[in-house]
Parts: sequence; C-alpha cells; structure tokens
Amino acid sequence: MNKINVYFVSDGTGLSTEQLGKSILIQFPDINFKYKTIPFVNTLQKAQTLAKKINKEPSSMVFSTLIHDELNDPFDSGDFFHINFLKQTIKQIEAIKKFKPVPTMGLDYRFGETASYEKRITAMDFTISSDDGNNVERYNKADIIIVGVSRTGKTPVSIYLALMNGLAVANYPLVDSELESRELPKSLQQFKNKLFGLTIAPSRLQEIREKRRSTGKYASPHQVQAEIRYSELLFNKYDIPYIDTTSISVEEISASIRTRLFNNVI
Amino acid sequence: MNKINVYFVSDGTGLSTEQLGKSILIQFPDINFKYKTIPFVNTLQKAQTLAKKINKEPSSMVFSTLIHDELNDPFDSGDFFHINFLKQTIKQIEAIKKFKPVPTMGLDYRFGETASYEKRITAMDFTISSDDGNNVERYNKADIIIVGVSRTGKTPVSIYLALMNGLAVANYPLVDSELESRELPKSLQQFKNKLFGLTIAPSRLQEIREKRRSTGKYASPHQVQAEIRYSELLFNKYDIPYIDTTSISVEEISASIRTRLFNNVI
Repeated sequence: MNKINVYFVSDGTGLSTEQLGKSILIQFPDINFKYKTIPFVNTLQKAQTLAKKINKEPSSMVFSTLIHDELNDPFDSGDFFHINFLKQTIKQIEAIKKFKPVPTMGLDYRFGETASYEKRITAMDFTISSDDGNNVERYNKADIIIVGVSRTGKTPVSIYLALMNGLAVANYPLVDSELESRELPKSLQQFKNKLFGLTIAPSRLQEIREKRRSTGKYASPHQVQAEIRYSELLFNKYDIPYIDTTSISVEEISASIRTRLFNNVI
Repeated sequence: MNKINVYFVSDGTGLSTEQLGKSILIQFPDINFKYKTIPFVNTLQKAQTLAKKINKEPSSMVFSTLIHDELNDPFDSGDFFHINFLKQTIKQIEAIKKFKPVPTMGLDYRFGETASYEKRITAMDFTISSDDGNNVERYNKADIIIVGVSRTGKTPVSIYLALMNGLAVANYPLVDSELESRELPKSLQQFKNKLFGLTIAPSRLQEIREKRRSTGKYASPHQVQAEIRYSELLFNKYDIPYIDTTSISVEEISASIRTRLFNNVI
C-alpha cells in the first residue's frame, strides 16, 4: 500500500496535534503513514494554500487544532479526512456541561507547563550546572538527585524534568570507588529522600558504551556487569527507588520519577 | 463558582492527554479548573479505584487516552463527564477510512520523537557540551548554532531542540567585544547557514538580569539597551534569521527555528 500523507495542522506549534495524532495512528500498525507537522497556520491565506495542496494528494488525512472557524473551513470543505481535536471536544463540553467557550489561538504549546516559565528556566540553569556530579555543594537546593553509573540516561532525564516540570535536578555518576566500597558518598547520604536511581540491562549498556569508547575496560562485559550489579546493591541498601531504563523513553522515566518521588499516584 | 476537578488519565505517561485537555479547557476562561494528571492507569483495579474516587466529587471531568475497553468502562459508566481522545477518533477513522486498529497500551509518551532515541541522546551530549560558547571547534558538527546576548533563552531552546528533535544545537553568547566591533567571530561566520538569533525586549531582559545580578553594569538599562541594539544590528548585517523571545515559550521559539531553518513551512 502506498504511504498516506498525514498533516498535523495548528495555529500554534502543532505539538499537541502531532502528539495525539501519532498516538492514534500508532493504533493502525498495518497502514503506512507519512507525517508532516505544519505549525503557525494563523491566517486564512495559509489555511487555503495548505488545504489546496492537500486536496491534490490522494487519501491524505489532516488532524488539526485550529480554533477559528474561518481557518477550519478550508480543511472541512476539502476532499480529505479532517478531524479537529479541539472543536469536537469543545462542542461536547458546551452541550453537556453548558460552559461557554471564548476561542483563543495558538494555545497548544503549553504542555509540560506545570511550572511557570521563570521556574523552568531557573531549574534548567541549576540542572545544567549540576550535571554529572558537578556542584555537589548545591544539592540542598535540588528537588531530585538522579544517581546511576555512566550512560544510564541521567542527563536527558534530568534536563527533561527541569525543562518540562521546573524541577531542579542534579545527577551524580556512581564510579568504581563508590561501587566497590558499597557506600554512597556522604554528599548523597544526607539527601536520601531526593535520590532516584537509574539502571539498565548490562547488554544494552555495553552496546551504548561501545559506541562511545570501544577500547579499555569502560565497555567490557565484565566491567559493565559489575557496575550494574553494584549500583543496584547500593540502591537496595539505601532504599533508593530506581527504574530500569532499558526499553522506556525519557518521557516515561521522568513520569515514573515524579510519580514515585512526589506521590503523583492513585 | 467552585473549582472543577479535571483528571487527565492515561495508561502511559499522560502527557498527550494533559496537553490536549489543557488546550481545550483554556478555551473556557470563565471556569475555574483544577488539573490532575494520573499516569500509568494500566490495570482494571487502578481504573476502578480512580473512577470510584472521582464519582464522589461533584462536577468532575475526565479526559483520557485509555486504549483498552476494560480500563475505559469504569470511567464511561461513572457519573461524570468523560471523553477518551483516542477512542472517538479511532472510531471515526475506522468508519470513514476502513482502517483496522490493533489496540496497544502506553503509546502516548512518544511526542517529539521525530528522531530516534539514539539520535536524541547523542544530540543532548553535543548540546550540553556546546553550551554558552564552549567547544567552538565542534561547530562543524552542529545542526544549529543559536546566538544572542546573555539571558535571551539560548540554553533552554538549545536543549529543547536536542531533546525533542534530536538536533545538535550549539549556542554562542554575544559579548561586548563582538557587539562593539560589529563583527561576528570567524568561528561563526563560516557556519552562516546554521545561525539563528534570539533577541528580547530590553525592559524584559533588564528584569531577568536583575534577578541574577543586580549590581554592576550587567543589568543596567544602558548596557541592556546597547547589547540588544548591537546584537540586532549584527543579525541584520549577516542576514541571520532571528526571533523576539519576549512573550513566547521555549516550545514556540523552537518550532519557529525549525520552521525557518529547515523550511518546515507551507
């Protein structure tokens, strides 16, 4: 079957349209979709030009979050499948809950903004300057301290939590001396409630490390297995919650950490 | 009016549910919503417990992306407003396009994954090590080089593009000597096609800088105005596309940069 062009169309960044649209289309694994996100469709001319282009392609699909009727019309009257995620739900809310909407454009970029812009930027500064064991003396200001051996994903997870949730996240790499002594450094012990561990399957870690540095003991099977084993021993000894990152995404690891540390649970 | 509890419920991280739900409810500015995201609702017991709890609250609303009927039922049969963003669209696709779905749980964390996991992690490493003018010698490996004076938002935007889009992004702070000479450093001039400038309203920059360091010339009105004026002169002189970050989010700045540099446009 030929590829089906799928357009995520938005008057803002298009992120929410894209994300939900992909979550939906993943449920149709037999179909070959080709995705394209079109942000900032905020004038009638842009909407008409795009709809005209899509009209010429066979079987195309459009998922949108356009809020104004005027910009929607070219897509609704096009000869292709179009679903507006905002409109259909807003209509249901109006009908059932009797709330009155006040349409506002460009609001779909706000995901992750559980924290204010200021807080996120301050958290980012903290997190970058506290990457990879730096600035241990500022751990009292951290919301979370992520620990784990080299290449378990500490940095991207820290950055994600800072950027998306405004959390000040430090990360600390466990090295041979700590692993062999079976002791956490004093700098970490005093902040036990903030600690979260990352682990990973040894075979996967070996693969990741080999790409970075294939010689020396860094990526050797023996070294990798010992580091993982000892780090998990440490997590258990100090009652540090931890997660296996082998087959899950940065987003999922981050959500798990928030859930576990901040009781964001049922 | 009392607050209305809104639950974003998901068998995955809940990010897409939360984001789209908020985009929708923002369209009802007169109603006072209180948001709560409940991730990883992946067993019948969790679904039942949560639905039972929500049933006791008056006027609560649930937006979900639960893919399995079994987990949906407790919410559908509850005495509250429930919309499942996935289900209703999947049904429309089935009806109109005749595609057959294969329901799969936990897929809503994939946003931003226009790049593979490997690529995103490699990009993150590059971006963190190339923050704030570091590693100029590696600019040949950058996809984008963001330039601007101190505190225009270069770092969070760089990190966002790396994490979400797998782009290797360096950022370079313009300092007095470059601004006064009206010349870009040679290290930047040779990569003209990769450059993107950030600017900001002087009053806003002053406010941001004062929070960091209120003494000395760093946050003085004269200094801030001169830096902004000279940086914009540089952008114009070298034909560098740039954007004013005063009132837009990191997500929006990032989408604009991708659109402008990579022709992600209509």
